[in-house]
Amino acid sequence: MFKIPDHQVAGHQASTGIIGPLIDDSGRFYKPLQSDHRGSQEVEFYTKFSSITEIPNHIRKFFPIYYGTKQIEASDGSGPCPHLVMEDVVSIRTNPSLMDIKMGSRTWFPTASEDYIMKCLKKDRETTTLPLGFRISGFQIYGDKDSGYWKPERKYVLGFSTDDVRVALKKFVSSNSSNDLVAEPDFAFAESVYGGPNGVLAQLLKLKTWFENQTIFHFYSCSVLMVYEKEPALKGHSPGVTVKLIDFAHVIEGEGVIDHNFLGGLCSLIKFISDILDNLPHNSAQNSEN
Amino acid sequence: MFKIPDHQVAGHQASTGIIGPLIDDSGRFYKPLQSDHRGSQEVEFYTKFSSITEIPNHIRKFFPIYYGTKQIEASDGSGPCPHLVMEDVVSIRTNPSLMDIKMGSRTWFPTASEDYIMKCLKKDRETTTLPLGFRISGFQIYGDKDSGYWKPERKYVLGFSTDDVRVALKKFVSSNSSNDLVAEPDFAFAESVYGGPNGVLAQLLKLKTWFENQTIFHFYSCSVLMVYEKEPALKGHSPGVTVKLIDFAHVIEGEGVIDHNFLGGLCSLIKFISDILDNLPHNSAQNSEN
Repeated sequence: MFKIPDHQVAGHQASTGIIGPLIDDSGRFYKPLQSDHRGSQEVEFYTKFSSITEIPNHIRKFFPIYYGTKQIEASDGSGPCPHLVMEDVVSIRTNPSLMDIKMGSRTWFPTASEDYIMKCLKKDRETTTLPLGFRISGFQIYGDKDSGYWKPERKYVLGFSTDDVRVALKKFVSSNSSNDLVAEPDFAFAESVYGGPNGVLAQLLKLKTWFENQTIFHFYSCSVLMVYEKEPALKGHSPGVTVKLIDFAHVIEGEGVIDHNFLGGLCSLIKFISDILDNLPHNSAQNSEN
Repeated sequence: MFKIPDHQVAGHQASTGIIGPLIDDSGRFYKPLQSDHRGSQEVEFYTKFSSITEIPNHIRKFFPIYYGTKQIEASDGSGPCPHLVMEDVVSIRTNPSLMDIKMGSRTWFPTASEDYIMKCLKKDRETTTLPLGFRISGFQIYGDKDSGYWKPERKYVLGFSTDDVRVALKKFVSSNSSNDLVAEPDFAFAESVYGGPNGVLAQLLKLKTWFENQTIFHFYSCSVLMVYEKEPALKGHSPGVTVKLIDFAHVIEGEGVIDHNFLGGLCSLIKFISDILDNLPHNSAQNSEN
């Protein structure tokens, strides 16, 4: 009944002897509660988030639906273990392309332990977190039946420079997404995925408006997950663009202050996506007039 | 001809044997070039900024006018020394109230030395820089002829908590600004200084729009300076609200990425100011309906 998810690109992944998330046939995602404070902090977040009625529905839909916790057999065979149960936002898709982007130029929260802060700070400085306000944690890009997916190793992705990030965001919406950053992207899906009233950019702008005002939560080390499918995008069909926030093990109370760390990174990501849309090949004549 | 400015609230201040800025009678401000890289970096910034014609005038007016560099006698009597010459945005006022707010949740830039980074990080964590995305570096609030100015010591201001910052921003636009944070602010100047089409909030929102798009500069350790005068505010006269960016010794090239660090802090400051305007005593009936 439970199986290891096909389409996970970041975070702890289940494999032989290693505990990780599971999914079932009904579209639910089971995340084992991490034994330290992180598991309970994520339960606390979901519980509080569910109880706050002031969060409008158009924002609520950026968060996976939460179904509580449940004791199930852990993926590593170590026996029953409590799991967070939530909406599986990916596995219902056939051939999803997806990207996990960890937000903020700082992944550590002020009250964390000194060891944790120094570990995070080191990683933030070694990745694009510091210069860009976000880093790509992982992705998979579906090519076609023959080429399948490009799903690079985590280590490769974490080594991305600013330019690599720019290219990866272009390849993410291209049809010729061969297994490297070299081939020139063709932007075949840029308008249908990033553009339009339900595209990634429009959704990120809605999130931005909320983050300019919300002072309830600070989302440290949280990710934006972008998902779409190439096949249904042909001939006027929607590619089913989904933008979700995931990973709330390091969410703390906002105490009346906006989450300027997440918001800054979000504005930076928005600028990267806008730049791609503003500079699409067929727009070049128009752009040169600006 | 040259004298020590009356209304400086932050930064290096001239006193016996200590070098600091000077002003003249014609409204110019002379800042001694710091002997390390900082002085030359600020000259470089002003030179580059002056040469970029794409910066619109409504943004250019947030920066002091730059008149180049000039060799004059240093304030400490150590002889001639090169000074940055710029518009004096304060001393033309009679009794200005002013506040210097250092922007960003990180005051260090990625390529700085390890010593410098650790020194800044420590200060960022000890002040409101980390939680708020900005810290008040200094202020003076004019009361009236009898009470004069409240101009607290730098050390006191740097010790501010989040709540202290909130109160200081309220006292800044109150008539009863006695020399502490205790007395209840009366918000007498809140609408005329923070509100309206030329008030602080409107000006900060213009800056925000620019920062969402500009990728030329990253303004580390730069300040927003707010200035106004109480007396002309009576009976429909404008309090002459000025908002300027100052201190560009740590500006680096943006390299195509927005300054998410400054922008995040700016959005946080905007939220603080908006909250004050939204919760003015006479607005309370209206607010309770929201």
